[in-house]
Order: sequence, then structure tokens, then C-alpha cells
Amino acid sequence: MQYTEGGVAAAKGFLAAAAAAHIRYEGRSDMALVFSEAPCTAAGVFTSNVVQAAPVQWDRERLKEASAVRAVVVNAGIANACTGAEGLRCCRETAEETASALGIRAEEVLIGSTGVIGMALPMDKIRAGVRSMAAGAGHSREKGTEAAEAIMTTDTVRKEAACTFTVRGRRPGETVSVTLGGMSKGSGMIHPNMCTMLAYITTDLAISKTMLDRAVHAVTADTFNMISVDGDTSTNDSFLCLANGLAGNPEITGEDEDYAAFEEVLRAVCRTLARAMAADGEGATKLIETTVVHAATKDDARKLARSVVSSNLTKAAVYGRDANWGRILCALGYAGAAFDPERTELYFAAPGEAGKEKRLLLFSGGSAADYSEEAAAELLSGAEVRILCDMHMGGEEATAWGCDLTFDYVRINADYRS
Amino acid sequence: MQYTEGGVAAAKGFLAAAAAAHIRYEGRSDMALVFSEAPCTAAGVFTSNVVQAAPVQWDRERLKEASAVRAVVVNAGIANACTGAEGLRCCRETAEETASALGIRAEEVLIGSTGVIGMALPMDKIRAGVRSMAAGAGHSREKGTEAAEAIMTTDTVRKEAACTFTVRGRRPGETVSVTLGGMSKGSGMIHPNMCTMLAYITTDLAISKTMLDRAVHAVTADTFNMISVDGDTSTNDSFLCLANGLAGNPEITGEDEDYAAFEEVLRAVCRTLARAMAADGEGATKLIETTVVHAATKDDARKLARSVVSSNLTKAAVYGRDANWGRILCALGYAGAAFDPERTELYFAAPGEAGKEKRLLLFSGGSAADYSEEAAAELLSGAEVRILCDMHMGGEEATAWGCDLTFDYVRINADYRS
Repeated sequence: MQYTEGGVAAAKGFLAAAAAAHIRYEGRSDMALVFSEAPCTAAGVFTSNVVQAAPVQWDRERLKEASAVRAVVVNAGIANACTGAEGLRCCRETAEETASALGIRAEEVLIGSTGVIGMALPMDKIRAGVRSMAAGAGHSREKGTEAAEAIMTTDTVRKEAACTFTVRGRRPGETVSVTLGGMSKGSGMIHPNMCTMLAYITTDLAISKTMLDRAVHAVTADTFNMISVDGDTSTNDSFLCLANGLAGNPEITGEDEDYAAFEEVLRAVCRTLARAMAADGEGATKLIETTVVHAATKDDARKLARSVVSSNLTKAAVYGRDANWGRILCALGYAGAAFDPERTELYFAAPGEAGKEKRLLLFSGGSAADYSEEAAAELLSGAEVRILCDMHMGGEEATAWGCDLTFDYVRINADYRS
Repeated sequence: MQYTEGGVAAAKGFLAAAAAAHIRYEGRSDMALVFSEAPCTAAGVFTSNVVQAAPVQWDRERLKEASAVRAVVVNAGIANACTGAEGLRCCRETAEETASALGIRAEEVLIGSTGVIGMALPMDKIRAGVRSMAAGAGHSREKGTEAAEAIMTTDTVRKEAACTFTVRGRRPGETVSVTLGGMSKGSGMIHPNMCTMLAYITTDLAISKTMLDRAVHAVTADTFNMISVDGDTSTNDSFLCLANGLAGNPEITGEDEDYAAFEEVLRAVCRTLARAMAADGEGATKLIETTVVHAATKDDARKLARSVVSSNLTKAAVYGRDANWGRILCALGYAGAAFDPERTELYFAAPGEAGKEKRLLLFSGGSAADYSEEAAAELLSGAEVRILCDMHMGGEEATAWGCDLTFDYVRINADYRS
């Protein structure tokens, strides 16, 4: 596999568009379209919140049906959440407008929204945005990056990634090149079990719905569900993956090596997007990566890693470059996983350095290690902070990503609506 | 029942003391002693964190034994957590020093610590503090308030409360006056299932250990476990209740009306202390009280109420006086309790006003109510913000307390150790 340029329109047959619909932002685009020239198999994972935004309800219904997907329309500024029957009507109208302009069916259109909860969508502006993006010159292979920029809210950088890899072709010995790319947005209201994040991955791979579903769920557990900015699980979280089959490989229908290659690439692209969201957390100055090793179970490893990156006190200490490892141990302690603090070892590590020699031991044998505060502060001074927790309880590991808690997080969220 | 002056030394036979031991603070006291002239029945609730500070381990052991309790020694500045065998040795030495000075046994001394995790206690300073408090003139009935001040860390106000009530005396028709008072500290690392809080209640009531245990656990679930400042469950949380029987009532051994009277008073005093801790949350400018009514189960009601007061986004919105009720609904949605958003009603209410006429309806029937933003901002402008969530799912209710998330929270926690 190899990373390449581009994002959601990198794979064969996918086109993208952006529009400035003036929904709540001025001087920037705030709507995006992803359109596939061929029908797509689609799979998705959505927020676990009891309160589900209208577009989440709409997409869930569409994915339940057997029909193929052709387009995704996304708007930023208003979440269309807690908007009752009116909100669902907006989804239908948006899908119908898109379908009529693109010559497809409304049921083939998925929808995503992000922004303020509880406000009604201005449908005249949405319709105008859809029309400009659906017009012949409106969408193209070159506009993936514009689409990634259009779906941003408090994000400070766009998030996109793409990879190519090969799978078997139709004839013996033949290989086919496949492209997979995607975009995401997410900065606040970010917490495991889907964040206020929208993520869209497209690929020209041919794969059955069952196998696409399997890959999407497997990868979500290790990537998007392992990031946290503020512990708030949104009403709108959506991760959609569309596969249009234009690469020409024989459809993947089982767990063979081609499936494994696809899952690996999907995982890599989703991890890249997830890390980018954590690093761009509202007000964040640092990415915090926490790896838990030797946990008793996979579930324990995930809970422990997420608890550390979700701890307000740990996040504030990292912001202040304070090697307050007691808060890390404390966060492990309330994660809901059993372990023996006497066996636990805590380290800071330099970014990208897996080697033991680059680790700084902070805690072991039930009490503080004899480390240098200067060395610890040095490891906290970069844009990326790595925390390693060795539980010595078993063989499972997991990594979670978060960010520091800063004055700017409070500033952004104290007046987000105004 | 009637509120009175005083705190932990209000009940008959209880004496208190404070000392400036210079553990980590200068220019203030940082150690407290509570001493009972008669042996006490004692009960306690401790942190659910897997990582338990040495004093928590010490106290748990003491309470498991049948022996009576005579004294509690508390220090602020260093938590004596994650300090291994050395930490437990410090507890034993503190207890022995106290016992020897007061003429009691080391096993009759309970210990509490709050402050930085991972540092060793300076035992010479602790011993000197104990000696000055245990000296004849060191402790008295008048020093309850000094003790409440000595255990503060980032607290900005001391927390104490006391009540008197009556129970049956030994002869038919006779009544006995009982006093119950207490002190607590807690400002950061505060989250349900015990907070970084220390709370000590003393009473001259005569009550069996079994019934004291029952009352302490019942009351904790509705009071100390319903507050949150930052979602971090500490390693040191301890709530201890000591009853020395000097009021002279026949010992309460069952769930009679005297037990009910005691539980009511204990609940009232604990609620007062819990609310005071939430209002004094690190950096807080406002107390947030969230009441959930008509939940399907008691557990649901508690989860829902706690989720709202724990939501960083709701807390930041309250700080900014932004009536962003979407974040409240979102927090209810990820609380882990089932409900139907179409039936949910959200209100802001004026402090102390239970009357329906003082409520402002924000959300009902699945979408925004037609309310005035000015009226909503007005209800967010005081020192106390009340949120009411009517789930229309059943008959259970619960109240939780938290505070807003402010710049000062970040400032305090980015450099707490330095």
C-alpha cells in the first residue's frame, strides 16, 4: 500500500464538489457533494447517542434498504438535530433536489450535517447549493480537497487521505490497482462511539455489502472510536464508506487476502483521519497518543487508553507541560478495567520512537520512578505527546488519541452559537 | 431538624484542631484532627478507583475490624497516593504518633490525605503537626471551622454544615436532642463514585455499625456521588461518618422512625456539603443543578442527571450564558439510559423556584420550543443555573450538581504542581 495525493475523489469514478450556500458561514464554502459515476455498495457506522439527528436517521434507513448509493450531500453550520419531523422532511427534500439534478433516485442519496443542534435548515439555500454542485461543471475529480474544506466547522485544517493498493484481477496472476481515499471533519463534541465527526471514504474496489460492513465496523473500533476531544458523543456522528467497483477486481465476498489488504488500507486511512481530528481538537496545541500494552483483554486495553486521553486533568497537565503522571494513573484507575497498580509501568515516549531507549519511565512498582523532570518536560514540549502504559496483565494492546485542554477550548465553546 | 452553627466539632464530645505543618503550603494550616472523647461507631465510603491511595487502604482496613474509632487525622498538599509500601508506612507512623499523643490505640485512628499524587509525605513535618494538634490545648470544641479550613486545597471556601434533631430517649415519651455536623473539601478531580473529596461527619447519636453503614451508603448515592466538576474520579475520595453515642439515646438498631430521622438529617447535611463542593469547583463561576424527573428507573434518572452536569460542552455553554439546549439533549442521549427524545421536555428554571410558572420551556415534541433567548440568557446569568429534564418515561427522579467550565479551570490545572 502507498499513500497518494487526494481524498474523497481519488478513487476511480468519484467526483466531488463544494458550494458556498451561506447557511451560517460567510466567505467560505459550507456544502459538499460526493458523486459516483457507478452505483456503490455502502456501509456506515453512526452515533450511539439516543438522540439521532435527522440525516443519521435518513442514512440508516437508506443503508437498511438493498439499493445502491450514488451520492452524499453534506452541509456544515447546522446539524439538523433535534428538529423533529421537519428535520426529516429537509433530508427528503435535499435528496430529491440532488437526485433530480443528477438523474438518480432520492433513495440513492445519503446526507450528512454538522453544526448547531436544534436550528432548522434554510431549505432555499440548501437547494441552491445542491443545484450549483450538481450542475455539469459543478463536480469533478479535482474537487475532493474543496469538499474536505467545505465540511469544516471549528476545524482549523482540512482532513483528507488516500492510498493505493493491489488486489487480484479476474485472470490468474493478474493484479488490479485499487484506490481508497477519504475526508473527515471533527474538532469538538468528539468522544468514542463516534464523535462529532463526519467521515467519508470512497474506493473503486468491488466488495460485497456484507464484507464492506465487516471492514467498516472492525476499523471503526480501532480508529474513530479511539479518539476523544471532550467526552461529548454527538448526535450526528457518521462514517460512510462507498465502494463502486470500477477498479475491475472480482467482487470480494469472503475473508481472503484481498479482504485483508483492503481492511489494512482502510484502517490506515481511517487512523490518519482520526489522528488528524484529535490533533485538531478545539483549542488543542498538542496531540496526545496513549498506547496501552499487555492489558488482560482487548476491551480493557481500549477502555484504559481512552480513559487517559479523555481525562480533563491529564489534558490540562499536558497543556501545562506538567509531568503529572499521577493523573494518568488515576484515569487508568477509573476506566472500568481491572489491573494491579503495583505491576503498572508508565512512560513518556518521543513521537515516532518505538524503541525502549527513547522511553522515560515515570512510575513502576507502585511508586514514582527516579526520572528527571527536565527530561519529562522536554517530552511534553512538542506538538505530539506519547504516553505508554504497560499493564503487565496480559497480551492485548490499544491506542487512543486525544488533545490537550486549553483556554481556547473554553473560549470556542462558551460562545459557539453567538 | 434545624440547621445550626458549626461543623465537625458541633456534636457532643467531638473536638477538632488544625496545624500549619508546612507540607506544601505556606502561610496557612494544612493538617486537621478530629477527636472524640468516647469511642465511635464508624462507617465510610471510598473511591471506586482501582488505584487507591494509602490512607484509603488504611481506613478500609480499620473499618473492616470491629474496633471503635477515636480520631481522624487529615493533611492537605500531598495525597499519599501511588506511594507503594512507603505510603502505607507513613499512615501507620501517623496513626502511631497520634495514638501515643492522645492515649489511644493506633488502630483507632483514621487518616485522610488530599493533594498531589505520587509524592512522599514529609514525615517529620507530619509528626510535628500531629503533636501540636494532640497537645492538651491543641484541640477543642471551637476549632471545627479551623479544621475545615486546614483541609482545603484549591477550594476557595471552607465547607461545613450542622443540624440538630430529636430522637426517642430511654424512657417512654422522652426525647433526646442529637447533633450532626461535618466538613468536606473538594474542588477538582471531582466526579461521581466519590470525588477528590474528603468528607467527615460526626454525630453524638447512638447507632449500630450496620445501620450507620446503611445510612452512609444510601445518602452517598444521592449526594456526593451526584456531583461532578471534571469527570475525574480521584484515588483518595473518602467519606467517613463517626457516631459516639453521647446524646444518650437508646442505640438505633433497625429501620425505625429514629433511623429515618437520622438518614434525613444526614442526607440534608451531605447535600449541603456536596452542593458547596460543586459550586466551588475549580475555576467555577456558576453552580449547575440538573434535575431529571419521570425517568423509567432510579438508575436512569441518576445517569441522565450526571451526564448533563458532566458534559464539557454544556458546562462551557453555561459559562458563556449560551442557551445551547442541544448540548443538554446530546448529553442525555449518551448517558446510557433509554428514552424517547420526542417525549423529552427541557427547561431552565430560576433558583429555588419549583413552581411551573417560573420554568422556561426550551425543547418539547422533538424540536425547539418557541422561547425568548433573552429570557433564557437571564436564567443563565446568576450564580446558580437550574436545568430540568422531564423524560415522560416513568416515575423516578434524581438531581446532580456540577459547575461551569472556565478559563480558570484550565489555568489551575495546567500548573497545579508547579
